[in-house]
This record gives sequence, C-alpha cells and structure tokens, in this order.
Amino acid sequence: MIIVLRPDATQKQIDHITEKVKKLGLKPWVSKGVERTIIGVIGEEDVLRIQPLEVFAGVEKVMPILTPYKLVSRDFKKDDTKINIGSGVKVGGKKIVVMAGPCSVEDEKLLITIAKKVKAAGATVLRGGAFKPRTSPYSFQGLGEKGLKYLARAKKETGLLIVTELMDTRDIKLVEKYADIIQVGARNMQNFNLLKTVGKSKKPVLLKRGMSSTVRELLMSAEYILSEGNFNVMLCERGIRTFEDYTRFTLDINAVPSIKSLSHLPVIVDPSHATGRWGLVGPASKAAVAAGCDGLLIEVHSSPEDAFSDGSQSLIPENFSALMRELRKIALAVDRKI
Amino acid sequence: MIIVLRPDATQKQIDHITEKVKKLGLKPWVSKGVERTIIGVIGEEDVLRIQPLEVFAGVEKVMPILTPYKLVSRDFKKDDTKINIGSGVKVGGKKIVVMAGPCSVEDEKLLITIAKKVKAAGATVLRGGAFKPRTSPYSFQGLGEKGLKYLARAKKETGLLIVTELMDTRDIKLVEKYADIIQVGARNMQNFNLLKTVGKSKKPVLLKRGMSSTVRELLMSAEYILSEGNFNVMLCERGIRTFEDYTRFTLDINAVPSIKSLSHLPVIVDPSHATGRWGLVGPASKAAVAAGCDGLLIEVHSSPEDAFSDGSQSLIPENFSALMRELRKIALAVDRKI
Amino acid sequence: MIIVLRPDATQKQIDHITEKVKKLGLKPWVSKGVERTIIGVIGEEDVLRIQPLEVFAGVEKVMPILTPYKLVSRDFKKDDTKINIGSGVKVGGKKIVVMAGPCSVEDEKLLITIAKKVKAAGATVLRGGAFKPRTSPYSFQGLGEKGLKYLARAKKETGLLIVTELMDTRDIKLVEKYADIIQVGARNMQNFNLLKTVGKSKKPVLLKRGMSSTVRELLMSAEYILSEGNFNVMLCERGIRTFEDYTRFTLDINAVPSIKSLSHLPVIVDPSHATGRWGLVGPASKAAVAAGCDGLLIEVHSSPEDAFSDGSQSLIPENFSALMRELRKIALAVDRKI
Amino acid sequence: MIIVLRPDATQKQIDHITEKVKKLGLKPWVSKGVERTIIGVIGEEDVLRIQPLEVFAGVEKVMPILTPYKLVSRDFKKDDTKINIGSGVKVGGKKIVVMAGPCSVEDEKLLITIAKKVKAAGATVLRGGAFKPRTSPYSFQGLGEKGLKYLARAKKETGLLIVTELMDTRDIKLVEKYADIIQVGARNMQNFNLLKTVGKSKKPVLLKRGMSSTVRELLMSAEYILSEGNFNVMLCERGIRTFEDYTRFTLDINAVPSIKSLSHLPVIVDPSHATGRWGLVGPASKAAVAAGCDGLLIEVHSSPEDAFSDGSQSLIPENFSALMRELRKIALAVDRKI
Repeated sequence: MIIVLRPDATQKQIDHITEKVKKLGLKPWVSKGVERTIIGVIGEEDVLRIQPLEVFAGVEKVMPILTPYKLVSRDFKKDDTKINIGSGVKVGGKKIVVMAGPCSVEDEKLLITIAKKVKAAGATVLRGGAFKPRTSPYSFQGLGEKGLKYLARAKKETGLLIVTELMDTRDIKLVEKYADIIQVGARNMQNFNLLKTVGKSKKPVLLKRGMSSTVRELLMSAEYILSEGNFNVMLCERGIRTFEDYTRFTLDINAVPSIKSLSHLPVIVDPSHATGRWGLVGPASKAAVAAGCDGLLIEVHSSPEDAFSDGSQSLIPENFSALMRELRKIALAVDRKI
Repeated sequence: MIIVLRPDATQKQIDHITEKVKKLGLKPWVSKGVERTIIGVIGEEDVLRIQPLEVFAGVEKVMPILTPYKLVSRDFKKDDTKINIGSGVKVGGKKIVVMAGPCSVEDEKLLITIAKKVKAAGATVLRGGAFKPRTSPYSFQGLGEKGLKYLARAKKETGLLIVTELMDTRDIKLVEKYADIIQVGARNMQNFNLLKTVGKSKKPVLLKRGMSSTVRELLMSAEYILSEGNFNVMLCERGIRTFEDYTRFTLDINAVPSIKSLSHLPVIVDPSHATGRWGLVGPASKAAVAAGCDGLLIEVHSSPEDAFSDGSQSLIPENFSALMRELRKIALAVDRKI
Repeated sequence: MIIVLRPDATQKQIDHITEKVKKLGLKPWVSKGVERTIIGVIGEEDVLRIQPLEVFAGVEKVMPILTPYKLVSRDFKKDDTKINIGSGVKVGGKKIVVMAGPCSVEDEKLLITIAKKVKAAGATVLRGGAFKPRTSPYSFQGLGEKGLKYLARAKKETGLLIVTELMDTRDIKLVEKYADIIQVGARNMQNFNLLKTVGKSKKPVLLKRGMSSTVRELLMSAEYILSEGNFNVMLCERGIRTFEDYTRFTLDINAVPSIKSLSHLPVIVDPSHATGRWGLVGPASKAAVAAGCDGLLIEVHSSPEDAFSDGSQSLIPENFSALMRELRKIALAVDRKI
Repeated sequence: MIIVLRPDATQKQIDHITEKVKKLGLKPWVSKGVERTIIGVIGEEDVLRIQPLEVFAGVEKVMPILTPYKLVSRDFKKDDTKINIGSGVKVGGKKIVVMAGPCSVEDEKLLITIAKKVKAAGATVLRGGAFKPRTSPYSFQGLGEKGLKYLARAKKETGLLIVTELMDTRDIKLVEKYADIIQVGARNMQNFNLLKTVGKSKKPVLLKRGMSSTVRELLMSAEYILSEGNFNVMLCERGIRTFEDYTRFTLDINAVPSIKSLSHLPVIVDPSHATGRWGLVGPASKAAVAAGCDGLLIEVHSSPEDAFSDGSQSLIPENFSALMRELRKIALAVDRKI
C-alpha cells in the first residue's frame, strides 16, 4: 500500500502514521521526493484495509497495490477451473455450454415444448425462473415451487440440466433440491447473505454481474462464495447500465477477456438481457464466442407474444436453432466447440 | 400506451395487434400519419405491461403513457406524507430530521459517547449498523444482535431514536425489536423479498436508492413496501455511480426536488456515502437542505482513525456540531428548521 | 408526436395547445383516457422540435415518434452504403477493411517500417495522427504538416491508403491534400463546425463516436456531414465511458448491429482505444468481426516502449500479424473476408 | 510514480526498467515485498508520462503520484483567483455573480426586454448565444454576428456585461469584439485548438465541463488556457451524463467543493442545463449557492413557449426575480451576497 502525503505534511504527522503502521505488525518505508513524500507499506495489505488511512492528518491519498480478492484470482490458481455440472457436462473446457429457455417458467406443457426444441438445437442446460425479481410489485412474480416442479419434469423428459434463480436465503433447500446450477441474479450480486448461503451449498453457482458493478466487484462477490468453500462458480456478464438507451443494457464484451485474465473461473455471457432486443441476440452471442466465453445463457420462448416477462428479448426456437448453427462455425474458428 | 408501427407494417399486422388489445379488455384506436401509423390504447395500462408488445410483427416501439407506480405517486396523494417515528418526532414536516452516528456499531462505550455528542449537537436519531454489507468477505461484517443491544443502550441513555439496517429477511423480528426505523441499504434496493418483508412490518422504513437506480426505480421499490401495507417510507438519496472518480459517488441533488414532485414521501439525503470524503460532507449537507430535503443521514465518529468502516467519510463530533450550526441558518433561509 | 397532459389539465389549456399546433400547419387529435388526455400531432415533426412544448401549461411530457435523422437512416436508403476509398478498396462490402498503424506519427523511418509490416500482414489503410488531441498541454501534440508528409511517403512506398485526423476547421485544405480518409475524433464528434467542414469535402470521412454519445447522437452528427452533401461517412465505435475502470473505455459491441439496423452507413470498430490494453485488442477485434463490423482500426507500433502516445494499447507487428490470421478465420465463419 | 511489477517479474526485467528510468534523468528505487516488487520513481513525473511504462515486460500497473495539472492547482496558487470581468464586477470574491438571459439570441427587441428584467432582478451579466451548438443540422444554428450586435445593443441599454459562446477558432476576433466573457461550451471542452485560441486572448473565459468529463479533465482543459497565458478562467459545472433520465443531466453538486479544494479558479453553476426542467432550476440554484459556488448561469426567457432552443428549461422573468430573492437569503446564510 502506498500512502501519498500532502505537500505540507509535517514530520510529526509522518511519525504518527509510521507508528500506527508498525503497531499493526507491518513495515513502513518513507521516501521523500521533491514534491511529495510517500510511505510504502509492506506486508499483509488486508490488515490495512480496515484502517481508514485517508483520515490521518497529512495524508493526501492511499493507493492499494494488491487486489482484495485471493481465491478467485489467477495468482492463486493458474489453470482454468472446469466445473462438473452433472451428466458429464463440464463448464470451462473446450466445449462452450449453451443454457437456453424461457425467462420465467409459466406453463408446464409450454416449458417442455421449449425444452425439447432447445435440446434439439444443441443446448445442454435449461434455464427458467421460478422466483422472478421484478421491478413492479404488480408484475408476475413467478410460480415458486410449482415452477421448480415443472423444471424437474422438463429435465426428466429431455435430460437437460437445470439452472434457476435463488432470491431468498430462506429458499435455499428448495432450490438446491431441483437445480443443477443455482443462479444468483444481477440485483442480488451484493446480497452478501445470499452469497454466503450459496457458498455453503454443494451446487455449482452462476453469479450474474450487477448492472452497475465493476469486474473487480464481481470478483469480490465470487470471493464470498469461494471463501465459504464452494469453488464451483461461473461468472456471468449480462450487460451493464450506461447512458446508451437504444439497448436495454450495454454488453461489456471487454469483460470476457478481462475476467479470464484476472481469474481462473469460467465466464458465461447472457446476450438476451445484455441487449434487451431479440434482433441483437445473434450478433451479441457471436461476439461473445469470438471473445472467448465459456458459455451462453439465451432466452428462448416459443410464443414470445404470450410470455409473462422479457418476451421482447426472447428468440423463437427456429431462430435459436439457426443461431446455434452459426455459433458452431465461430466456435471452430476460435478452436472451441458447441 | 402508444404503439408505434414500422413504416412497412401491413393491415394484417395492425389487425392482429388491435385484436390482441381488445381481448385484454382494452380499447385501441388507430391513427395513420404520413410516415407512421400509431395505435393508442386506453384503459388500465398494467394489463398491457405484462404483454411484450414489442415482439408483435410490425411494431417499432411501445411507449407507456402512465407511470407504473401508483401508491407512492403525488397523483395518488397530494399532501406530503408525515411519518411519526416515535418520541413525537415527525419526518416530512417543517423540521429537518438529522440522523447521525457511526457507520458500524463497534464498541458500546464508544457508541454511547458518540450518541451523546450528536444528541448535544441537535440530532434526533442515532444511526449505526449492526449488520454490515461489505464488498469483501474478509472485512468486518458487523456485531449482529450484540450491536443492536448496544444501540438499545445508547437509546436508553440519550433518548435518541434508532435507525439500523436489515440485510436478511430472516432477521426481521430481531431488527424490528430494536429499531425505530428499519433501513434497507442501497445494495438491497431491489431485493424484492426484503422489500415485501419490511412492507409487512409496522415500523417506518428508510429505503436507500441503489447506486445505479433511477429515481423512478426507487419509487417502484417503495411501491413494493406500500403495496404490502406499510406507508411509512422515507426515500434516501445516497449518491449514484458515475464515471467521476474524485468522489466515491455522485450526489444526485436533482433527485431531491424530482422525488418531491413525483411522490408524497419524505426525502432524506446521505452526504457521507454520497461523497466518500469527510471534507465534502459539509457542502453536500448544505446543498441538500437548500434543495429541500426532509432529513439528513450523517456519519459521525469520535475517532475516525480507528473506525472499522468508512472512517474517511466520517465527521468528528466537533465538525458535526459546527456543521449543525451552519445548517440551521440555511434551514431558516428556506423556511425550515433543524 | 404525442403530447401527454397532466391529470389536472383544463379544457382551456388543451385548446391553447391545439391552436398552437394548428398555427404551425399541423393536425392535432385529442384522445381522452380515464387517467390522461393525450394529443397526437400528425405531420412534419421537425417543425415541432423547435417548439418547447413541455413549457405549455397542462403538459406533462412530450414524446417524439419519429427519429430526428433522415439521410443516414435505413428508411431513407435500404441498401448498405459502399464507400470507394481509393485504389479499388471499398468499405461496406464483403471485405472487412483493416486500418492499422501507430497512434501518432513520430519518425519517418519508423513509420515506413510499421507501414510495411502492417501491409504485409494484410492491412489496406495506414492510420497515424499528425494532429493529436491530448488531454495535457504538456504532452506531444503531433508533428503537424511534417507528419502528413511522412504519411505521404509511407503511402508512396507501400501503396497503403491514409486515414488521419482533422482537428481544426482551418486545417481542412492541408489534411485533404494528404488523407484518403479524414478522421473526426471522438472529442470532436459534436464540433459542429468541423462536421460541416468535412461535409463540404469530397473525401470519405471516418467519424468516431464521442465517448459519452449515444448511437443516435452519433447518427445525428453523421447527419450533419450528409446534409452538407458528403455521403461517404463511416461510423466508428471506439468505446464509451462507463463506471468500469479496469479497461480504459467499454467497447459497446451492441452498437455494431444497432447502427447496422438503424443506418445504411458502414461501421468500423477501434479495439485499441475501446480497451486501452494491448492484451485485450485481440479478443475485442474478434468480437467486432463476429458482430458484423465492416472495418477495424488497430494501433500497431514496432516499439511501443518508445511510443509518444498510447503505447500501452499498441500491438507489435508480430502480434498484429498473428491476429490477422485469426481474424480471417472468424471473417470466413460469418461469410466475410479480410 | 509507482511501478507495480507482476509477481513473476524477473530481475532482468527489473533492471531493464530501472535503466530506462535512469536514462530519462530520474532516480528509481526498488522495494521488494512478499507478494509484489514495486519501483518508485522520484523526480519530474511529466517526463514519464510520455513513456508508456505499462508495456514493459514484467509491469502490472503504473500509478502516478502527482497531478498532471500545475497552473490551475491550489498547490501552485493558494489564494482564490478573483477575475475582473469589467464594470468593477469581480468573479471569485464574496459576491456571487448571476449571469442570466435566453439560451439563444433570437430577436433584438425580445433580448432587450429580457435583459432589462434580469438586470432589475439583480443579474450583472447577460447570457445569450449567437453561435449555437445544436445536435441536429436542421435546428436553429444561431444568428451569428447579427446576434452579437443585438447583445451589444442590450449591453448599451442596460449596462449588463456579456457572456457568449465561441465555437470556431476562426471566429475569435469577432467574439472578442463583443464579449466580456468568452464561453467555451461543454461539447468543446476538449477542442484543444479552441482552448489554445482563447488562451491567447485577453478576455476572461467561462469553460464549461464536458458532459462526460471528470473534474480532473476539466482542470486539464483549463490548464491549456492558463498555459497560453490567460489566467482569467471560470470553471462551469453544467451537469454530467448519467443513467438517470428523469432529468436531462445530473448536476454534480460535489464538483463545486471538489474544484474549490483542488483549484484556485472560480466555479460557476448552470442549473438550467444541469436539470433540463425549469421547475428544478430553483432548487438546483439554491443547492449551488449553499455548496459554495461563485456564480450562476441561468436561462431566462420572457416567452419560453416561443423560444428557439431550450425553452423547457427557461425561467420566466417573474420566476427568476422570485428566485433571486430566495437566493439572497441563502447567500447570507453562507456569508456571501448576491
């Protein structure tokens, strides 16, 4: 950690800071330049994080050197993490895993119809929300356990694995019972109790990036899960909030290679939420595969006109199927497969 | 709701849409312009919100006319809501209510010392977190119930009311027992289950704006609470995330009069989180009072150097006391009092 | 245009507005709903744009129906624009045009070395700034005309076409003399006099998106150029400013298909500025090709350690060459070529 | 400057970097920690800014210690700059200077009417654009020199000083002839040639913050002007672009005390553009005065319904006059006057 002092910092202030640092069991070194004196601190930086050094008299700013996350970082583990999600499917290897299905689970028959179609097109995981985070209290809030049961039925009929969202710490047992992958939604990325709860679970977790969270904050949230013992975490880029309003969110495609370089965890991209327009899901999916993602989470609905949520960003099965054919070509071009 | 059609929309597409609208029990009217045909829909707009009209063939865009929130809006209730928070203190009236105290509750003695000082300076509510949302799993996470007990002791000693954060639906009984105002933090603004839980409580709620939530989304989250029966909600502007990085967040001062014009609920400003620098807390507080806020939430710590969290944005009691004197003058200038 | 009235709008206010609209030669129609009355206006919307209808008593909001740009839109011209930039090279067709070279022109010999290498790797246009917009007055500001002459020499030696930036209306003659494509930089996207100046030029223009401009604002700026008679405009996505700070900017990959659907003009992507890190230029370039761009603008420098500007985002020629090989595969996968 | 090395940096890489630093005439010191080695560099940091140190093998990141601006900083000049704008009026002292008038100059008679009214209400400077930056080429672009002449007439009739915008380096002589303060608009904040041009002028400059520029970038742009010899620069906060869309921009009220602490230059606030809604201009103006601004730039139009630009954010003279009375009270409360 580097402590930059104000030009008018006194020797007394410098001494006060170095003493404080020493009391914490760390070693300070002072370097006096022409315009500024700086104090470097060697040792376990975490000890210092809890100290608000900016408030010490004479301090201009404090610059951390080390990243605050450990277990999720490439420094901690060099090799890519490969997560076994069941049925022999691995996320994080050569194969790009496609998770597809409706935004919310609405009707059993409809769900099974969609499931069969996405399976036929090459998806290996079925997505569908039984608990839905909705901005309006008057919107459809999901079917709850009934929705989970429909997912179970669809799994039985098709062999697809299931990814579904957990919204409340009280529902962990319920969701664990039905899900192969537990999704933590963007709005809950910093719901730290929820993170600890899935951290104690044995199920793989798909953690979505908050709409205004940086890549490093996403890694910190993943650190919560790993620090509780669950290392099977996939990170999901799903678009960030910016001033651009033609699309619902801005897909941060840079995040894919950025996360891959900072962390060993697999990266999934959700082109449906990241664009909010079904006409852009294709180009966004292709870009994600070309940029190196390990999986895709795509909304597919057989009659978007009747969907209870996010119909405008859903592909119909025919378009999804055509897209899968195109994605296969791009996957090959970057030495992956779908 | 206005449905704008594409220039190439066919009569068949137009008929398909109008039929769909009629089936929902609403009345469409079609207006053909030179460049575009539009379909207006009269009636209960909520029925249409669940229909993704954008996916209908021939539709270019859909523009809602009405706001999606009802109970929180000025249209629903003309007069300012005044919330009785206990001990005869009302939020939303002529008096600007000041809530002050440390970011997190750390030590009983220290808390009581701070409580006495902020009380002497004119605060009526003591703030302090027993459950702390922290970005790092390795940071201090709060004292939990022990912290709540310290708050109760401080209340008993000073007569200050208590505002403290609820982070997990499972802790509602516990927090209700000690708090006069239940705080929902910025990171939980769209934790909808938490909103429903405090909506069922009888305690007043202080709802903080998410760091990347619009004013209208804040109102939607408040709507969740009111729709469950709890009308005693204060809305808190605490800075939004922008590209500016000199300050930790950007205080959206426009939000104060914006919310006051859209809603009848009281508006609180948190200048400590909204700036992240104690040197800016003074000017930001003054601006908030001048702009018409109903309350302030200010971090005060008697030895910020030793604070476990957010020390760099805490005022020392002497500065807080001086600030209160200045705020009183501005309050008078805008015909309020502190 | 739709004028939404306040719930308490009076008949007198409604009459005042409809009269005003009629005076402008337009036809208003009034539709009274249960909760709101709205006034639709049919006709040339531009006439209304200059009228601040929001200020009329009784008006709640005004919602435009039509886009404010005309000449750049797909409605105006269905087919993709193909721009002949010289030497038989066309931008906007099946071939993806790669423009590569140093950020700024620094040394003649060095420039020619780089030019030869990017030519060998498959680039068809040489980029290089003679006039440099720099945030600090103390930074290298470019060589001016001397730099342009170096570019001319490099063109002569390699046959590469030249793209270079114009920063000042006073320099148009000078830049026109040397450039095959005139670049308007991100910081000048709304320098409207500069836009009019290049609009009167016969040279193709590469217009970079402002770092905080929406896609629609980019189209409006292009409209300035087309409205002066120059239809040979390429639009360049170069990253937007967001809260994410791991990368210098956030590449808005959604912008590529969005612009292609809204406009007939070709879209270029600058992965160097959009990431600010040379290690991310590869994945970003691949994503851009997969998403459907018509060209790439890539910084290449043979010794980035000695570059006067933006060295940290420059590829060395060997990496550029390897990237070109990978891009060719992706181009084929999306039925294009490089 | 602090150079943080990668955990796997070799001694050879370290030596290469320290040699490079020494060659530039600077003194490096190397400090090896448990997890990272860092190299500190003492001396003139500007020399290093032109070197892209991030590209050196073994480097993880580079952190500057010193600010890149000099002349505008408080370190360079402790005392507040007071700018004599003519007629004995000073900006930057105890008196808060109010500049008011229409967005654009449209009609001579109308302008003089407005001028008389704002003068009567207490304004000392008349604002009004003769050259207008407009996003659409089809919008009113300003009257040019004719508009400047109208301003001159209004000045003669009322004694008000004139602030008006310069958009093109070619118009400097013309604008200098009529203006008491030359305005550089938000869209031109990084039009560096324009900055150099006004830097060579003897007239005071009002520099508006770009809508997506940080406070530090605003200071860098001001540095351009000061470095050319013109020290009479006022910095103007006019709202930044964020995701919030209820208001046109987000007034960054934190910027007022931030700039005052970083720089000696006076700070002006433009509440009209910063909100985009006349109903919010009052609260925003009051907040600005309470936060410590040195001046206000307010749009006033006697018939906003007929304004050619930005009518919806203009106050009518009666409202402006009432606002001035309220602002006087707040100014007194913070020991200033209006």
